[in-house]
Amino acid sequence: MATVKLPDDPEADPRIKAVFDDIRATRGSDFINNLWLYLAFDPQLLEEVWRDVRDVMAKPSLIDPKTKEMIYLAVSVANACTYCVHSHTAAAKAKGMSEAEHAELLRIITTAGRTNHLLNGMQVPVDDVFDAGG
Amino acid sequence: MATVKLPDDPEADPRIKAVFDDIRATRGSDFINNLWLYLAFDPQLLEEVWRDVRDVMAKPSLIDPKTKEMIYLAVSVANACTYCVHSHTAAAKAKGMSEAEHAELLRIITTAGRTNHLLNGMQVPVDDVFDAGG
Amino acid sequence: MATVKLPDDPEADPRIKAVFDDIRATRGSDFINNLWLYLAFDPQLLEEVWRDVRDVMAKPSLIDPKTKEMIYLAVSVANACTYCVHSHTAAAKAKGMSEAEHAELLRIITTAGRTNHLLNGMQVPVDDVFDAGG
Amino acid sequence: MATVKLPDDPEADPRIKAVFDDIRATRGSDFINNLWLYLAFDPQLLEEVWRDVRDVMAKPSLIDPKTKEMIYLAVSVANACTYCVHSHTAAAKAKGMSEAEHAELLRIITTAGRTNHLLNGMQVPVDDVFDAGG
Amino acid sequence: MATVKLPDDPEADPRIKAVFDDIRATRGSDFINNLWLYLAFDPQLLEEVWRDVRDVMAKPSLIDPKTKEMIYLAVSVANACTYCVHSHTAAAKAKGMSEAEHAELLRIITTAGRTNHLLNGMQVPVDDVFDAGG
Amino acid sequence: MATVKLPDDPEADPRIKAVFDDIRATRGSDFINNLWLYLAFDPQLLEEVWRDVRDVMAKPSLIDPKTKEMIYLAVSVANACTYCVHSHTAAAKAKGMSEAEHAELLRIITTAGRTNHLLNGMQVPVDDVFDAGG
Repeated sequence: MATVKLPDDPEADPRIKAVFDDIRATRGSDFINNLWLYLAFDPQLLEEVWRDVRDVMAKPSLIDPKTKEMIYLAVSVANACTYCVHSHTAAAKAKGMSEAEHAELLRIITTAGRTNHLLNGMQVPVDDVFDAGG
Repeated sequence: MATVKLPDDPEADPRIKAVFDDIRATRGSDFINNLWLYLAFDPQLLEEVWRDVRDVMAKPSLIDPKTKEMIYLAVSVANACTYCVHSHTAAAKAKGMSEAEHAELLRIITTAGRTNHLLNGMQVPVDDVFDAGG
Repeated sequence: MATVKLPDDPEADPRIKAVFDDIRATRGSDFINNLWLYLAFDPQLLEEVWRDVRDVMAKPSLIDPKTKEMIYLAVSVANACTYCVHSHTAAAKAKGMSEAEHAELLRIITTAGRTNHLLNGMQVPVDDVFDAGG
Repeated sequence: MATVKLPDDPEADPRIKAVFDDIRATRGSDFINNLWLYLAFDPQLLEEVWRDVRDVMAKPSLIDPKTKEMIYLAVSVANACTYCVHSHTAAAKAKGMSEAEHAELLRIITTAGRTNHLLNGMQVPVDDVFDAGG
Repeated sequence: MATVKLPDDPEADPRIKAVFDDIRATRGSDFINNLWLYLAFDPQLLEEVWRDVRDVMAKPSLIDPKTKEMIYLAVSVANACTYCVHSHTAAAKAKGMSEAEHAELLRIITTAGRTNHLLNGMQVPVDDVFDAGG
Repeated sequence: MATVKLPDDPEADPRIKAVFDDIRATRGSDFINNLWLYLAFDPQLLEEVWRDVRDVMAKPSLIDPKTKEMIYLAVSVANACTYCVHSHTAAAKAKGMSEAEHAELLRIITTAGRTNHLLNGMQVPVDDVFDAGG
């Protein structure tokens, strides 16, 4: 069940085929997951989202690929995005997250969830020393 | 402005003093930030929250201290917790997060925020291959 | 699977029948979707929620019906309400939202999701010129 | 700083005066807090919101007034609504919530925040026995 | 479908068996729901989460068990945690929440959801009298 | 107070100056609001975010500029982003949103907030007819 229609033959459209080819080349895998298949309902949105995700997640950068996936997963958990939690848990594991690291990640996320609620409930003033902006 | 009363002389209570001493020893600093000062309104809650945060964030574990703070910060951003965002940005910097890493962290968080909304809007079915549970 | 029991014969209760009749008349359709069927477990809550939704969404107002559904959908996406996303996507389409408008709506929602996370992470002070309250 | 303009002399409008009079009578107090003062920028919205809040929170019902405020506060914490957290903490205290009950409420809210994140991260299937709907 | 693997024979591990025994004794029931079964993938996390939930929810305290479950449920609804909403609705009913109380709880939660959005949209300044912190 | 440092002389960097010039040209105004000033701490992130926001919000498209701002605002309210709510309320007004339309927008947002909580609490199954994906 989805709110957009899965295209019948998405790669008949050369814009979609170009994105799918780039996904396969970037990942070294023939598998295209449902996000991209359904997103093909709008080639422009597909191109924009893939460009962003690829540039942030697949290009070499300061933060290593496994850690990037774990951070992405942490945000997805907080935002209650079911699909994203499943896909980025799988991606983090594919990039080397062990079961013990997964458990520790959940421990950090849930502790943050706890104190986020605590501070939103206490409304404590922010300490002046935390200001980086001035 | 806060929803709980800042205790006048919190360390007069030995339970509070014990927690504050542990905070100072754990961090190697005399500074006690507002979360703990205000949380002293209830010694039991102070003890429980500090125990959790210390065990997860200050004890040696699989994930290094800087990365743990960056994950904690990512969750706090998604949960719109103003105090937590300020305090954990400061903590991540204190543990070595550079300005460039901070920018990359924001790039990952905001890309996740974007696709979290996209998937919540598209309601795409989760691919079977993502299932780890069976 | 639901947390409330679907009534066996909801329209046997005249309060429920009155609401269902109004739903059918307002929409010009015999179809009653699951929200209202399950909400019939409590006639008072059913009456209150239907009154609110009808007055805001079905009565002539400054904002046209299609746009109202698109705004409603945007909020539902941000709040990760699965049922609401499905029902208000269907309603927006029924009121004329094209596939291209749906894609543009998702583009706006996801860009907002991105910058919402960015600003919650940066905690930038609000510009004085934005104040409307003084 | 606000996004709507505080009316200069709100009670010059008889619709606004009627709502403010009802607020004062319902609460047995002359104090009108900022929510209602600013909401007076639109008399219809003021009337609707006050009617809802009054009917749910100020009329005798199954749940006692103090508990109702504590539940309202719990939702407001989870939704990160700063104003609401402040106003409903004050209201819960005015209706008898002790400092120890406030601490216990925060303990429940933060434990829920913790396990909400845990389950959103684990995506465990819902047990069949929890179904009330069939 | 889940993001962690359900252990084959969880109680073969004495740490897990000890927690499960405590769950059964605390609840006076042989039933172990999926949260705990899946959480057994990491004995330490299982021990920590159960200890927290048991201490807050199952030990005698100022707030009665039924009300505690209703507050827990309110937070879970606001956080869009599907599993938590199902499990804590069932728990609240098991501790005596009637259908009419359930309806009233939903009425409070949804009114809070409404005004939380209203205040986040209006950004009204917090009244000075609400400050408890000074 | 912010988590990133406001650059001393941002336009000394030609990449930043190019973005600021484009902001001024696109808006027909010399005013650069704090988001962009602070975001100049990282030229790449500044470029990417501005490109996205400009392409979605400032280029001619199917949805008119005022409506786009109102949708953006609706998402920002649901996500409790204080800065975004202020800036996009101001932008929507600048593009023609009247006070009456603002009140109606708040009415739609708050009704959605209400039913989002209701459905997350009831967990009603999605009607088959809402499926667009098959």
